Amino acid sequence: QYEQMARSVHGLKAAGEWHVLESLMPDLKGKSVLDLGCGFGWHCRYARERGASSVIGVDLSENMLNKARAMTNDTAIEYIRLPIEEISFPEERFDFVLSSLALHYIESYQNVISNIYRLLKPGGTFLFSVEHPVFTSREEQEWHVDREGNRVFWPVDRYQSEGIRTTSFLAENVIKYHRTLSTYLNGLISAGFLVQAVAEPMPSEAMLAAQPEMADEARRPMFLIVSAGRAS
Amino acid sequence: QYEQMARSVHGLKAAGEWHVLESLMPDLKGKSVLDLGCGFGWHCRYARERGASSVIGVDLSENMLNKARAMTNDTAIEYIRLPIEEISFPEERFDFVLSSLALHYIESYQNVISNIYRLLKPGGTFLFSVEHPVFTSREEQEWHVDREGNRVFWPVDRYQSEGIRTTSFLAENVIKYHRTLSTYLNGLISAGFLVQAVAEPMPSEAMLAAQPEMADEARRPMFLIVSAGRAS
Repeated sequence: QYEQMARSVHGLKAAGEWHVLESLMPDLKGKSVLDLGCGFGWHCRYARERGASSVIGVDLSENMLNKARAMTNDTAIEYIRLPIEEISFPEERFDFVLSSLALHYIESYQNVISNIYRLLKPGGTFLFSVEHPVFTSREEQEWHVDREGNRVFWPVDRYQSEGIRTTSFLAENVIKYHRTLSTYLNGLISAGFLVQAVAEPMPSEAMLAAQPEMADEARRPMFLIVSAGRAS
Repeated sequence: QYEQMARSVHGLKAAGEWHVLESLMPDLKGKSVLDLGCGFGWHCRYARERGASSVIGVDLSENMLNKARAMTNDTAIEYIRLPIEEISFPEERFDFVLSSLALHYIESYQNVISNIYRLLKPGGTFLFSVEHPVFTSREEQEWHVDREGNRVFWPVDRYQSEGIRTTSFLAENVIKYHRTLSTYLNGLISAGFLVQAVAEPMPSEAMLAAQPEMADEARRPMFLIVSAGRAS
């Protein structure tokens, strides 16, 4: 069913947070790129369009990687099936590491972050998006609605209780890991990263105009995007 | 009425977030300290106990400053009545700038932050706490309760709509300014600061044991604490 979501069919432009993620990308010309949780490979192909010299996409889903391969005609992009926790590359192998909406599925955040730091060249950038801690705190991940079904507000609970959240997504149970904002940021800092930018994206003006129900995205943050740098 | 709050009568140890704020303090021995929004001067006197060479406390309330002066017998502490937006000191005047629960009353966050950066010596630290954006998003700032009055969850709304929130605090209307987490952090970064630590404090174990109702503090973040450094 994930395949039918707008972002899966129409790619990056259908994702409400894409315009913000894109604005935080470094110059990719001639750069070596790693995409953790690459899914259908949209970001891998985007990196090549922006001039990256080589891209490696990692994902756990063979099904998604097969689709990614079918959509990719580019020998400079390589897709590898692996859990993000198990990637192994030479130190300082990449200029840019990207991870879009994958790290909230990972239990061992700190290990992964420290590993990414090691894989980045000095001066390199790590850019990631996750579901916002305000969004992941409750398993329900739903608006509080009144009897008529109107969205009254967004409920937060168990914020400080990090760990597994079993949520329903497209009718299937999915295990996510809720982490606080401070854990996301301090994990980067303690790995050695400099926090360069933090974003809580809203849909673009164009998307708001086309899909008025997107206005509710202003009522609570759904995504957290962080750009972090390894000092040169 | 603020004078009757536990933190006003009993000082720092009565504040649920104090143990975390304290843990993020730099070494104060021989340091020149500025406290923005000093209230009754608890943090000013604490800084001197920790060996600070001189402390300036700034607050808007003459009433609070009079109480602060009455509790202070130390010529190395000076209290000045001024809005935080209007402080004016020589560049690189201070080693450490502290602001506890004051900046969410300030409209011009970015100007204040840039000013603080300018006042800090290279290598200096700026440490502040504010009410958390999850706490300030709605004017009500109250739990959603069921018919029996049980706290069901914490409501978030209007998160992305920064600006004035007129809230009731101790039976009086108070104007606060809601800002997103990304505004708090990016404002520091764009002023030149390095973000060194981010905390969303919970009450201490001792406080939880003494006041069981504090357990609800785990359900939503109430305070945000950030330590930021000016590079040496």
